[in-house]
Amino acid sequence: MLPRIVEVRKNVLKKNDLAAAALRDRFRAAGVCVVSVVSSPGSGKTAFLETTLALMRSRYRTAALVGDLATECDAERLRRSGAPVRQITTGTVCHLDAEMIERALDGRALADLDCLFIENGGNLVCPASYGPGEQLRVVLLSVTEGEDKPLKYPTIFNSADIAVVTKIDLAEAVGFDHAALLRNIERVRPGMPVLPVSSRTTYGFSSWMALIARRIGDAQPEPTPVHIDG
Amino acid sequence: MLPRIVEVRKNVLKKNDLAAAALRDRFRAAGVCVVSVVSSPGSGKTAFLETTLALMRSRYRTAALVGDLATECDAERLRRSGAPVRQITTGTVCHLDAEMIERALDGRALADLDCLFIENGGNLVCPASYGPGEQLRVVLLSVTEGEDKPLKYPTIFNSADIAVVTKIDLAEAVGFDHAALLRNIERVRPGMPVLPVSSRTTYGFSSWMALIARRIGDAQPEPTPVHIDG
Repeated sequence: MLPRIVEVRKNVLKKNDLAAAALRDRFRAAGVCVVSVVSSPGSGKTAFLETTLALMRSRYRTAALVGDLATECDAERLRRSGAPVRQITTGTVCHLDAEMIERALDGRALADLDCLFIENGGNLVCPASYGPGEQLRVVLLSVTEGEDKPLKYPTIFNSADIAVVTKIDLAEAVGFDHAALLRNIERVRPGMPVLPVSSRTTYGFSSWMALIARRIGDAQPEPTPVHIDG
Repeated sequence: MLPRIVEVRKNVLKKNDLAAAALRDRFRAAGVCVVSVVSSPGSGKTAFLETTLALMRSRYRTAALVGDLATECDAERLRRSGAPVRQITTGTVCHLDAEMIERALDGRALADLDCLFIENGGNLVCPASYGPGEQLRVVLLSVTEGEDKPLKYPTIFNSADIAVVTKIDLAEAVGFDHAALLRNIERVRPGMPVLPVSSRTTYGFSSWMALIARRIGDAQPEPTPVHIDG
């Protein structure tokens, strides 16, 4: 890259880091668990969140922000869960950054939420650099994309907390080699948790729900200590 | 985007356009047909080129350049066809630009080639803006990604000359709706040719080979007129 664009990019990233830190404080103070989802286009982020929101509906207060270059399709799909959903259209920008999230939240109180999901635009490269202040970053990878993806997009796998392998119901049809994927993830991110799911059949979602429940518990603000004077 | 990054980006795009125009002239003078392939990660660009190179082997002189953030995996796969292949590792840059192509060609004479393939890194956003001087840009989309992709990534579909629908052998397993895809492509790019293929079964490759053969014919330099003085 040209030295000048490198310099400008550094400043933009620094600016994002500051905005993300402010958001992270705000999320922590509100006691809301914020989960972001990144993947290639078509890995099944929206389907994964549709199933997730549907399963959480009766027990948790959820909401979602959805980033896309164009269209309101994904927000419309997620709204069917009954959760409030806001679409962020990014135009030609290939990722959501902290400022877009801040604008979309628009001063909204967050303390009435247990969990906020942020669906990033389909891209395995750029979202790695622009964290939106989330507590848990999930990278999705569908079995149809090939087992080599962690090696080819190491930065996004390194920046995520958990890998979710989607469309596991198609594993046999595409000759998916799960052991090879695990080896490749282990090479770029040793010890990363890997969760195979099918949003169609809900296979794997009980583990996912247990993980989210733990994270929601962790996000609860500490109870204010009660001092009893003797 | 910040005004300053918009300005720098404009300059970088302009610089790329100039480099791409110079490359295009060089390709035209050499009479080589240059085809670039763009898609999401895991849509099957490498598999598509593996089958393409294998089928062209006996009749044409081919070569390929392959862009990825990391690894030499794709170049190794394509080299099995016997064609000369060079990997371009882009680090954190999410697309191939004209200067990277120029550097990778490294002053190589191109007149001994019929067709040069350029496989871009997996990304449906950024490569739309950085043409590498190709004559034919192919956007790949696998049936597993969903029929909505043209609406959600209109710029890349608008910048491409043909859409190739890959993994068509999985269409039934994923409940792929071909008519819906065609409608969506028609909305963003009316009249765009759409070619369904399976790199595994070679379904659709006879049409693809016929198209490439025509393009190679078109790329041939005009024969030098012979003047016979009477």
